[in-house]
Amino acid sequence: MTDSTLLAQLNWRYATKKMDATKTVPQEKLDVIIEAIRMSPTSSGTQPFELFVVTNAEKLAAIQKAASDQAQITDGSHLLVFAAWDNYTSERIDEVVDINVEARGDLPMLNAYYDNLKNSYVPRDAEVNYAHAARQAYIALGIAMVAAAEQEVDSTPMEGFDPSKVDEILGLKERGLRSVILLPLGYRDPTGDWLLPMAKVRKSTDTLVTYVD
Amino acid sequence: MTDSTLLAQLNWRYATKKMDATKTVPQEKLDVIIEAIRMSPTSSGTQPFELFVVTNAEKLAAIQKAASDQAQITDGSHLLVFAAWDNYTSERIDEVVDINVEARGDLPMLNAYYDNLKNSYVPRDAEVNYAHAARQAYIALGIAMVAAAEQEVDSTPMEGFDPSKVDEILGLKERGLRSVILLPLGYRDPTGDWLLPMAKVRKSTDTLVTYVD
Repeated sequence: MTDSTLLAQLNWRYATKKMDATKTVPQEKLDVIIEAIRMSPTSSGTQPFELFVVTNAEKLAAIQKAASDQAQITDGSHLLVFAAWDNYTSERIDEVVDINVEARGDLPMLNAYYDNLKNSYVPRDAEVNYAHAARQAYIALGIAMVAAAEQEVDSTPMEGFDPSKVDEILGLKERGLRSVILLPLGYRDPTGDWLLPMAKVRKSTDTLVTYVD
Repeated sequence: MTDSTLLAQLNWRYATKKMDATKTVPQEKLDVIIEAIRMSPTSSGTQPFELFVVTNAEKLAAIQKAASDQAQITDGSHLLVFAAWDNYTSERIDEVVDINVEARGDLPMLNAYYDNLKNSYVPRDAEVNYAHAARQAYIALGIAMVAAAEQEVDSTPMEGFDPSKVDEILGLKERGLRSVILLPLGYRDPTGDWLLPMAKVRKSTDTLVTYVD
């Protein structure tokens, strides 16, 4: 196998269980992680989610309560909340068309493509569209975890929270958003983390991969 | 912002529209991409998907038919098909427990954790479980696209295909799997790709990010 910095980063990272509450991720590293999320590919380039960077102590405490009191939410220095669109709408797709026109010019092909997308997405059930948007946020989540590892920042992806409560705490519903995943950022506490010394567990390549040749 | 190789890779990659059919991704680069998928984090470490690496010409032609004849499927040298579990079952979670026990020992905490997971997942509707599994595949998809870029391999994520047809072509249904995303791998054809010279389009950081401080 060719040398790969990415593989080293994937081996370095782990779902940090105990973060050092005295340490803060510097803004220049946070900026790289956010930029990686912004640059993440999404279906038809819609980027159908928003990112909330929470450092407000009251909001963090409230989110922690809605997430089984998981310590990383307040021990980390920043909490990223990925909030997916609750639906695809013509307005939202038009905004995507606008930034395309701005960057690439008013191409007929481009307008036809997004007209077709609107015809296909807008009549669909909101839950189908939300499910699709949420998946796109997971692409960015994967890339965000790589970005954090590259910056030697620890992160812990969390699905174990009450989305309706987090939506309320951050006022997401009125913005047409639904929280899908939390990602606290911070620094591991090497003496306090039971998971750190444990072996990483992954399925074998044989279990996971089938060659159809 | 700190220097970031990842950001350079995210800017280098694009959803390649025209691949050079004469070029083949070498096995050592393919191995890195597969290993990155294998090492991708997933919820509770279940890795609830399998990866199919398709090079068989007949299968590729059939999949291409089920995917609006997109050329990259046959112009690329390898087609990755991510196939998510159609449901969480006790047996599938027990296999995850087994590899955990093998790597970490037979810890009571570990058994309690996965017993709890079974109690929560197994009674749920299969569609809910599939949706959850599919999201985990999207984490690996994001990381696979980074891995490809690191190896200077082009890739094109594709949702535009008929999953039931692809499931049939690869025999996924009888294995309890459902195809969620295609990712052809290959090399861009710089003279034939209309997208390559175009500016990359992304929303502004201001549009995407809200600080709650």
